[in-house]
Amino acid sequence: MYDLVVVGAGTAGLTAALYALRAGKSVAVLEGNSFGGQIAYSPRVENFPTIKEIAGSEFADKLFDQVVFQGADVDMGEVLEVNKLPDGTFEAVTEYGKTNARAVVLATGVKHRHLNTEAEARLLGKGVFYCALCDGAFYKDHEMAVLGDGNTALQYALYLTGLSPKVHLITLTDKLMGDGGLQQRIFANDKIVWHKSVNLIDMKGETALEGVVLTHGDGSEELLPVDALFVAIGQVPDNKRFSSLADLDSQGYFASGEDCKTKTEGVFVAGDCRAKAIRQLTTAAGDGAVAGTNAVNWLNK
Amino acid sequence: MYDLVVVGAGTAGLTAALYALRAGKSVAVLEGNSFGGQIAYSPRVENFPTIKEIAGSEFADKLFDQVVFQGADVDMGEVLEVNKLPDGTFEAVTEYGKTNARAVVLATGVKHRHLNTEAEARLLGKGVFYCALCDGAFYKDHEMAVLGDGNTALQYALYLTGLSPKVHLITLTDKLMGDGGLQQRIFANDKIVWHKSVNLIDMKGETALEGVVLTHGDGSEELLPVDALFVAIGQVPDNKRFSSLADLDSQGYFASGEDCKTKTEGVFVAGDCRAKAIRQLTTAAGDGAVAGTNAVNWLNK
Repeated sequence: MYDLVVVGAGTAGLTAALYALRAGKSVAVLEGNSFGGQIAYSPRVENFPTIKEIAGSEFADKLFDQVVFQGADVDMGEVLEVNKLPDGTFEAVTEYGKTNARAVVLATGVKHRHLNTEAEARLLGKGVFYCALCDGAFYKDHEMAVLGDGNTALQYALYLTGLSPKVHLITLTDKLMGDGGLQQRIFANDKIVWHKSVNLIDMKGETALEGVVLTHGDGSEELLPVDALFVAIGQVPDNKRFSSLADLDSQGYFASGEDCKTKTEGVFVAGDCRAKAIRQLTTAAGDGAVAGTNAVNWLNK
Repeated sequence: MYDLVVVGAGTAGLTAALYALRAGKSVAVLEGNSFGGQIAYSPRVENFPTIKEIAGSEFADKLFDQVVFQGADVDMGEVLEVNKLPDGTFEAVTEYGKTNARAVVLATGVKHRHLNTEAEARLLGKGVFYCALCDGAFYKDHEMAVLGDGNTALQYALYLTGLSPKVHLITLTDKLMGDGGLQQRIFANDKIVWHKSVNLIDMKGETALEGVVLTHGDGSEELLPVDALFVAIGQVPDNKRFSSLADLDSQGYFASGEDCKTKTEGVFVAGDCRAKAIRQLTTAAGDGAVAGTNAVNWLNK
């Protein structure tokens, strides 16, 4: 029986663990995918206080090391459900087993939004990807495209110019929504071709992507002969299986306030999975500190 | 005319500046005391994600360097008032001059709570202090005392044992309120004498502290022959001069929510100065990111 089980080993979950560990609590952290969460896929981080520049993967490694150093037990395993037991404690169930604890922090993050087209499904992993840092290197010197207008899309496009002489940036509107600094770097980079106000209506290729088809406002079509497409059109939460413990908002985020509390005493939420306006490393860390501290306060009662 | 003026160069203010700078905005940061804010006085920080251990002063230095590297103009000068001008822009007034900007982030932090006794006023700086890291070294090998039961008090007591063979920890109740981990280190440290459930009713000495007088529950008095007393009984905000721009709660904190917005468009608040339950480095940084981003969004409108 642990004092606390943390579901999700991203920045929020690991920070919650850190705070609980430093208060003398025993902590298990369960992660279904890769440690570090979303940031591990970010080529370069410049906006975390005190760190001028760091690769996201190194950021994730350092945080992971810090939490293990403080005494966390970390296990792989996607948490399928968390049950409240009759004695008031909780069990987190993965395909590999059960972890029991007196308190829970849900830090499930978000997942990449898909296009949900037949073509995307057909070419998934065969030219269609969601993480430029993970898969861009497989297409070195090939023509590639990024779909999306936010920070992630802009970062992907810039990152890919280190691998390819020609990177297409495809946006539905004529505006980029990412940071001004990123936009300036996009505009200044002559390897990037921006296709604005277009619809990506089809993808060519059966066993490997051979190109994407765009339509313009005047109805004309254009084929971009790219071998890789990185879809960066947003992120979605994946919290439904915890809705008996914590209320969700209409978009599926945990409907909790700044105090990270839920309708279930002893259950807290933290990070990108929580309803909030601004999802950043710093706000995930802040949530982790709040959820971890409130879990400790609840355990000490 | 700057895009943004940030009042206060602590973790929250500097993080807000970082976010605005990376969005291509021009930023001035004004600070009345010392750069880095409260954390600069913390001997050791272990609870900031990715950093296993760092001196607070080094944390402050790194954040300061990062923000200057990104292009901030930083100036000394206590901001006496911020005025909204007829054209909708703002001017921040210090004793040295005026700084004009289109948006404002107030990140004024908190100040040390005083005992407000005649003895404290008489011996201020002559044995009575609020920062062990700043002033403890002046009393190396002397007997010293810390008043308070929170994290700051416990950290001070532990820090001072590196300087003195005998450190008194004085608390009004029989409980310590700080982190469990800190408490364990207090209990394990035989240089620390804990005086619990006592009142500090007087201080001896005219031009230098010669001792503090405690009363016990049974009415008996005790004189501790200490040459230095570190008062660590909490912190208070200092926001009254900005109350025309941003509402205050009953304790004087800015009454803003997680979005860091105020009743004045273009004015945002961040960090310890804001009404919130948990004041940590991480939550200050989170606030900074939110206030900085919302200021940028407002400027871009």
